[in-house]
Amino acid sequence: MVYPAYLKKLVDALTRFPGIGQKSAQRIAFYLLGCSREDVVAIARAMVEARDKLGFCSACGSLAESELCTYCSDARRDQSLICVVQEPRDVLVLERTGQYRGLYHVLHGALSPLDGIGPEELKLDRLVERIKEKEVKEVIIATNPNVEGDATAGYMSRLLQPLEIRVTRIAFGLPVGGDIEYADDLTLSRALDGRREI
Amino acid sequence: MVYPAYLKKLVDALTRFPGIGQKSAQRIAFYLLGCSREDVVAIARAMVEARDKLGFCSACGSLAESELCTYCSDARRDQSLICVVQEPRDVLVLERTGQYRGLYHVLHGALSPLDGIGPEELKLDRLVERIKEKEVKEVIIATNPNVEGDATAGYMSRLLQPLEIRVTRIAFGLPVGGDIEYADDLTLSRALDGRREI
Repeated sequence: MVYPAYLKKLVDALTRFPGIGQKSAQRIAFYLLGCSREDVVAIARAMVEARDKLGFCSACGSLAESELCTYCSDARRDQSLICVVQEPRDVLVLERTGQYRGLYHVLHGALSPLDGIGPEELKLDRLVERIKEKEVKEVIIATNPNVEGDATAGYMSRLLQPLEIRVTRIAFGLPVGGDIEYADDLTLSRALDGRREI
Repeated sequence: MVYPAYLKKLVDALTRFPGIGQKSAQRIAFYLLGCSREDVVAIARAMVEARDKLGFCSACGSLAESELCTYCSDARRDQSLICVVQEPRDVLVLERTGQYRGLYHVLHGALSPLDGIGPEELKLDRLVERIKEKEVKEVIIATNPNVEGDATAGYMSRLLQPLEIRVTRIAFGLPVGGDIEYADDLTLSRALDGRREI
């Protein structure tokens, strides 16, 4: 026995985490073996508890502690504005800006024919329903600035066109604090396209 | 509530893992929320089980499933040879070579005055005891090739001198498959120092 079975099982479990390879998993496993039993139990419990207590909002798909998320159940938020994002974590990132006061819609993915993810998998009909129910005036598309995110944004703008609402996409350009010298060509050309009067 | 309490608790727990920052922890947390409950329980159980079933050998400090590790309880291994490493995972790395057939001694750290780790913390007296008990002929020092590892190797060679055994340290040099052009100065000068007749 070179590699104890329980260690192998733990390392295998940890390598399933996103961004964790064999070496990182082994490092984390040994870290856990060096912790007190109470600490390991606390971490294990935090995982199961989070999985048990948190779910996704039945209306918008954001992270929620009950049937509806705090955004959907907050009447003070602008009900005429829906921001569409790919993942629940994107909602937290947008909330951190403190600038956006509308509702959200989480796709839980992006169009990706190679991975077998089409419009049905993203439940885009649910978005159309919500727009009709809520008298939404504008949909802001905040999918990722990559191939899948672009395809999803394009598909959605065509899908929403008949609804006669404003459909926008968040701006691409130079990251604030960045340096033009280090900008990649694509970002720079998108920044030129998106230029505004000052 | 922007960040649900259960999510925060989980992210905080995950950031304690070595090499996991805030962003990676958040990514892993959302991955767990998207898993089935059974999968999350399986991962949590693998952590606690590994912690419960695995410990460190009372003789050498290696990873062990019982009082003694498989190396210390294997009479076929060369009892006259002890290889000293910093961490239990280093033993697995050395075992993977399939070349070493002696015993191990795990320090569980390295000398680091800034972190308050002195010779007492490394239980170096236990190593001296083992050497005397076992009629050891050679101690191979395999601490890391960095400041702490060098300091530990230097301290140990002075500590073991009165015992009149052979004390060696594994070789430094070019990594096999590497390219001299890309070797750093320190590695290259150590490789020159360690040159051998061919």
